[in-house]
Amino acid sequence: MDSSSFNMIDLILKKREKGALSQQEIEGFISGYTAGTVPDYQASALLMASFLNGMDENEMVHLTRTMLHSGRVLDLHNIPGLKVDKHSTGGVGDKMSIILAPIVASCGVPVPMISGRGLGHTGGTLDKLESIPGFSTQMDIESYRNQLADIGLVMIGQTEDIAPADKKLYALRDVTATVEFIPFIAASILSKKLAEGIDALVLDVKFGSGSFMSDETKARQLAETLADLAERFGKKTVALLTDMDQPLGRGIGNWPEIQESIACLQGEGPDDVMEVTLALAAEMIVLGGKTPTIQQGMKMAQEAVVSGAAWAKFRALVAAQGGSLDAINNPTQRDSAKQTLSILATQAGRISRVDARIIGKMAVALGAGRMKKEDIVDPIAGIWLHVKAGDQVAVGDPLAVLQATSSEPFESVSKRILSAFEFDEDIKKIPSRIKDRYSSGVWVNP
Amino acid sequence: MDSSSFNMIDLILKKREKGALSQQEIEGFISGYTAGTVPDYQASALLMASFLNGMDENEMVHLTRTMLHSGRVLDLHNIPGLKVDKHSTGGVGDKMSIILAPIVASCGVPVPMISGRGLGHTGGTLDKLESIPGFSTQMDIESYRNQLADIGLVMIGQTEDIAPADKKLYALRDVTATVEFIPFIAASILSKKLAEGIDALVLDVKFGSGSFMSDETKARQLAETLADLAERFGKKTVALLTDMDQPLGRGIGNWPEIQESIACLQGEGPDDVMEVTLALAAEMIVLGGKTPTIQQGMKMAQEAVVSGAAWAKFRALVAAQGGSLDAINNPTQRDSAKQTLSILATQAGRISRVDARIIGKMAVALGAGRMKKEDIVDPIAGIWLHVKAGDQVAVGDPLAVLQATSSEPFESVSKRILSAFEFDEDIKKIPSRIKDRYSSGVWVNP
Repeated sequence: MDSSSFNMIDLILKKREKGALSQQEIEGFISGYTAGTVPDYQASALLMASFLNGMDENEMVHLTRTMLHSGRVLDLHNIPGLKVDKHSTGGVGDKMSIILAPIVASCGVPVPMISGRGLGHTGGTLDKLESIPGFSTQMDIESYRNQLADIGLVMIGQTEDIAPADKKLYALRDVTATVEFIPFIAASILSKKLAEGIDALVLDVKFGSGSFMSDETKARQLAETLADLAERFGKKTVALLTDMDQPLGRGIGNWPEIQESIACLQGEGPDDVMEVTLALAAEMIVLGGKTPTIQQGMKMAQEAVVSGAAWAKFRALVAAQGGSLDAINNPTQRDSAKQTLSILATQAGRISRVDARIIGKMAVALGAGRMKKEDIVDPIAGIWLHVKAGDQVAVGDPLAVLQATSSEPFESVSKRILSAFEFDEDIKKIPSRIKDRYSSGVWVNP
Repeated sequence: MDSSSFNMIDLILKKREKGALSQQEIEGFISGYTAGTVPDYQASALLMASFLNGMDENEMVHLTRTMLHSGRVLDLHNIPGLKVDKHSTGGVGDKMSIILAPIVASCGVPVPMISGRGLGHTGGTLDKLESIPGFSTQMDIESYRNQLADIGLVMIGQTEDIAPADKKLYALRDVTATVEFIPFIAASILSKKLAEGIDALVLDVKFGSGSFMSDETKARQLAETLADLAERFGKKTVALLTDMDQPLGRGIGNWPEIQESIACLQGEGPDDVMEVTLALAAEMIVLGGKTPTIQQGMKMAQEAVVSGAAWAKFRALVAAQGGSLDAINNPTQRDSAKQTLSILATQAGRISRVDARIIGKMAVALGAGRMKKEDIVDPIAGIWLHVKAGDQVAVGDPLAVLQATSSEPFESVSKRILSAFEFDEDIKKIPSRIKDRYSSGVWVNP
């Protein structure tokens, strides 16, 4: 037993007995674990003890800061303007980043965005962007900085040198049932976001069946923790708590969501997608210092769509990152070779709910996501919803259309997807997707 | 992620959420961990979740049974008589096994005893026996069985093929701060004891500063858990709760304790040692079916000492296991080359308490135990207490004598050992070492 592992035992013991770890102790753990001197089995014992006994705000700050500084921290201060990013906790049909980043950038707020891949039943921005032929989400830091300076917008995947400690720790959490713990989730998200070099952050924290944290109370806690923690790092932060119980929009899957995003940027997006997108965009525009009020931010965002500036910014992004302008200008050609299957209603009535989790899982089963990390995504696979809550249907009406490169998964998916559609004649008015807004310690119903 | 580790995640998750693991789940975990298909980091996450969320009685039974059957389980039914063993949770000056095993065996109860080594500040029976020149504590199962049949007594160390799962799991607990958890402790002790082929068991569960579990309430819980669990395996079990706040007897260290054990077997032992030894021996004699009452068991044990039968049985044991009869017949010659240092009182008054933990630690510092697993023990190192609680001393009176092969540790030990001696004129009558007796769900004050 060398001295470093001896100290690690004391650390585990302290947390086991509900103690709070000091900055030095957390740094010792994270740097030792990243360097390999703290073994996995001690790290996982500490993770579980933390999970069950909790971490206080100071511990979260130390954990986030240590993971943040385990890799490269970008400095974008040479680029004029307040850099603002958005992070979503993920959902089904959540294509907001692809729409709002061009909107906000076209309003003059630089948006440096580092995104992730699809996880479980939720999609990932990177997979969606990569469904545009030629679009590259990998670039070096210099090119990233240059593109941000040139067009005010860059959207890439996480690089190896950003928060490597988080990457290693996440892999361990994933196999030790220690993922769903707010302090770890918050530290993981923020260590990566803070490494981007942003000045402010908007959070889209989702609840409901299609989200990662389906329980509204827990999602609310996560929003508070994330926002308060980001503020401790000097970043102005606003969190919107949004309803992810039903899919956002009608297109679910990578290319279907790009298609729907293009429609949104051209002013023809579904109401639910535009409601959430414009609300998030307005917050980013305010945080970027372009206007003092949310109302004016909203107006600027809407005008960016109407004027075509947002659509132009998106095309500039696609061009800068090597994507095919032809594909986005003629979106229906991209998936012209797709196999499709219509799902028809077997009962008449009014649709009261479309379960987002089931739809998300069925999209993955069609090839739009990964069951295992190594799985290859089918860019055109997905689901088009023909009905949304509130719609009246007759027997035989199409509820949804499945699409994929191969029709092989259709049989199994078609059997399971019907359970996603719930019927109830007495459905009330469809409520707003935006439940609440949190900033500087205060919840407001917008 | 292969299917076996996927199941392990579900298992961790279940325990994390306070679920009770089934027999199948515990068997899957233990057999997978022993075989190496469940990695250390998943095992340690499950250990910590169990530690913090608890295990119920059925889980303890499954865990004990699975560890018991991870290796060889001895079958001693061909040897006539009810085989009875004793287990102590360990203490300072705790040489009971060496005295009571010959007493009980000489009363006709076969005693198959598998013991451990010193751990921390507490001594170990194996180390003590091995301080007898030539005495071997390693033998194969066939020789073990033959010796038990021949002389009714065998005392060896744990073999590689007894409860190997416990060995691997203990090593992991040791480095992940998951040792001090009653269900793990109980399963660890009993999986080894049950593998010996015993019919009944006496437990000496100690509390106070010199014991492993110093808190009396926790020691009481441990006694109940151990006894109830052993009964679930069909073994009649009695637990005595005994006071280990002060060292037992006057000799602490391996050879000093053999010397004191010889004195006890010759009818010249200190009162506190004999009180606990005879109480435990009486229980074993009753469980061995030699007499129905504890009072008669006590009488038989006393007579075995007075008649010389116990001393003869001890010499037979030493001879059978290759130890030097010359050394035990002339015990003072064994350590004639020792270095010694008297510790003199620096204040006058009545001794109210001698702290067992400090004395134990000082004995280890002299070389009687191990700081690290690899350390080599000095067989003659130890401490002779010249005073016990209740004794009146003047300045300059010897409190204790340190002894070791080398005088090198004397300076540091002599500085620290004085704090073990507490003074108080108003000390009350020295209470019995035996606090309570537990059997079949009932606590009795004997």
